[in-house]
Amino acid sequence: MALIVQKYGGTSVGTIEKIKNVAKKALTAQSAGNQVVVVVSAMGPTTDVLIARLKELTADYDPREYDALVSIGENESAALLAQAIIAQGGRAVSLTGWQAGVETEDNHNKCKITNVRAGRLRQELQAGKIVVVTGFQGLNSRGDVTTIGRGGSDTSAVVIAAALRADICEIYTDVDGIYTTDPHILPEARRLERISHEEMLEMASLGAGVMHPRAVECAKVNNMTIAVKHSQQDGKGTLITMVGEKLNTVSGVAAADDVAKIGLLHVPDVPGMAAELFGALAAARINVDVIVQSIHEEAKKNDISFTVGHDDYAQALKITEAKAGAWGCAVIGDKAVAKVSLVGIGMASAPGVAARMFAALGREKINIQMISTSEIKISCIIAQKELKKALRAVHTEFGLEKC
Amino acid sequence: MALIVQKYGGTSVGTIEKIKNVAKKALTAQSAGNQVVVVVSAMGPTTDVLIARLKELTADYDPREYDALVSIGENESAALLAQAIIAQGGRAVSLTGWQAGVETEDNHNKCKITNVRAGRLRQELQAGKIVVVTGFQGLNSRGDVTTIGRGGSDTSAVVIAAALRADICEIYTDVDGIYTTDPHILPEARRLERISHEEMLEMASLGAGVMHPRAVECAKVNNMTIAVKHSQQDGKGTLITMVGEKLNTVSGVAAADDVAKIGLLHVPDVPGMAAELFGALAAARINVDVIVQSIHEEAKKNDISFTVGHDDYAQALKITEAKAGAWGCAVIGDKAVAKVSLVGIGMASAPGVAARMFAALGREKINIQMISTSEIKISCIIAQKELKKALRAVHTEFGLEKC
Repeated sequence: MALIVQKYGGTSVGTIEKIKNVAKKALTAQSAGNQVVVVVSAMGPTTDVLIARLKELTADYDPREYDALVSIGENESAALLAQAIIAQGGRAVSLTGWQAGVETEDNHNKCKITNVRAGRLRQELQAGKIVVVTGFQGLNSRGDVTTIGRGGSDTSAVVIAAALRADICEIYTDVDGIYTTDPHILPEARRLERISHEEMLEMASLGAGVMHPRAVECAKVNNMTIAVKHSQQDGKGTLITMVGEKLNTVSGVAAADDVAKIGLLHVPDVPGMAAELFGALAAARINVDVIVQSIHEEAKKNDISFTVGHDDYAQALKITEAKAGAWGCAVIGDKAVAKVSLVGIGMASAPGVAARMFAALGREKINIQMISTSEIKISCIIAQKELKKALRAVHTEFGLEKC
Repeated sequence: MALIVQKYGGTSVGTIEKIKNVAKKALTAQSAGNQVVVVVSAMGPTTDVLIARLKELTADYDPREYDALVSIGENESAALLAQAIIAQGGRAVSLTGWQAGVETEDNHNKCKITNVRAGRLRQELQAGKIVVVTGFQGLNSRGDVTTIGRGGSDTSAVVIAAALRADICEIYTDVDGIYTTDPHILPEARRLERISHEEMLEMASLGAGVMHPRAVECAKVNNMTIAVKHSQQDGKGTLITMVGEKLNTVSGVAAADDVAKIGLLHVPDVPGMAAELFGALAAARINVDVIVQSIHEEAKKNDISFTVGHDDYAQALKITEAKAGAWGCAVIGDKAVAKVSLVGIGMASAPGVAARMFAALGREKINIQMISTSEIKISCIIAQKELKKALRAVHTEFGLEKC
């Protein structure tokens, strides 16, 4: 007998019909001899509707009352799902975050789960019930309801699975697994049977968008295997597991097109200039992604280039231009760039992967504007209009469409 | 400095605009130097919408999940009201039933409040906040959310007021007080300045419909003064207080028109017949109101008449006919009757009140079909079509239109 934690997102419980379907899936898992915990998000657009009501009252909402309000979306879906399971002849109980013992930091909105006191969860499982738990919420030490940020139900599921020492955490979503690249862009993209937590983290933060990065981090820390599956279809999905099993050198190619590039040219080669620039950007809470510093042909001058998200572009450009004015440098900016990233846990020990990627892009006459590398990832900044061509070139070069 | 508990019903918080208005009223009460607790119902039709969703899943719902689901309507309105107060520059905090320490019996739906652990409520009041509490809900000893029945927010408010030893419990609703009779039927009906708990209980259970009878009972037991006021208008409303102050002999005339009469004629005058009939009706959970047994002209036979609500009429008639068949009696039934009730705490010590009521009806040639009396109430069953004429006759006879 295994202990399974299943998580269903907002679209998977978006209607009463879909809730009935989820109830059936949970009952099937229980009938196969497993103990089952189901973590749910709010039904479809419920959370957005609640936030819209709050915004009718004020633009500057109170964080505590925000949490008290938006958490009720999950209370609704959890109670309805428990009822749906009971109506289908099963035994079930819905638990809110505080009833399930989910404890968080004292602050509100986007706070972190600190502990799960799983006594009641275990008691209800031992009584033979399917336990439906609200995702996204917990209780702080003041006795107030808190939420853990949008998309946080993934994290709730993994943390609860870890606390219960579950055998697996199944994330049900609207795709049937993790792909070698975005199948909407490249039809030949192939579903992966298996991927490591580290690779998934790179894929998630690079725009693969299936799972919340914090949930993957949490699974990695707790050595928890995740299965990503489609909520309305049967299928094996993709397993996200620890390393040590046979893995491809290269797992996938991630694409991100909401990237902007800023270049600061002819920066005096004096210590502390980069620190001053990126300190100013950090103070404005701008998240800088790729940073490249290169020696300029002119002696004693450098070029510094970096990328930011489109949302932060205007402000980042303003801050950079202010610094450039003081230092007598030139600034260039470009919103029409994209990032192509090759991800694979095996590439650290496989020489030549980077060279093959650059060559594949070169054959297609795609100019690489910036490069950034880590142990398991190579990212290239290119012109946005060449994104699809670049994805296909890299995907084909590494044979990702083949098993 | 007084401690005031205010309660606003579903129509009073039915829109964001109305919630802003309630926030203003609460802030006004606080600015006048009072500590303020506000108890709220769910916004307008929210509870009905939630129940409709549940019914899409099953006709035979699970009581625990019913409570987990429908209680969120109050969570929503409480958080929005707290936010509205904060947005208007005040300090506020919303508390759910469990956060406010409202403890109930272990059963679900319609359960009773057993205790209020008011520690957190007091702490938030002492911190200068307006405390917004969800009506209608509490927590049982299993740690599960419970609800106390439709209309139960009145009771929540009174129980919380009693626990805090509040100076007054203000019930804001869509009428501006308690009237000598239904002003929709008789325009000359007059708002009462003051009425006793006992009279209000008779008025409430007889169809005056402004307050939940259990809330009035609870106020009586706790010696709590209630003010019934209009939520969108200013005005003194009506005070519901303990006896001992100057009160009229007669306070009002209540009308109920969803009444049906069943008569069982020629019942053998043998002990136990009435017990058998009303036992069968009770077993079917039919609430019998007025019961009259009279001697029939035929020797050793009785007539038994009683009234039930329109909802129970068909079933009650069926049960009575089954008994009548066994006993060889005749049954008559009539749905077109109404009940006119004269209520007044002073009438117990004022002889002749009943006679004046009967005479007033007689002058209008209104036939009295059944009579039932208590210490502070006289009820007459009459033909439904004569209800308005009867109300006016009794109202005028006792000069209720005059102060």
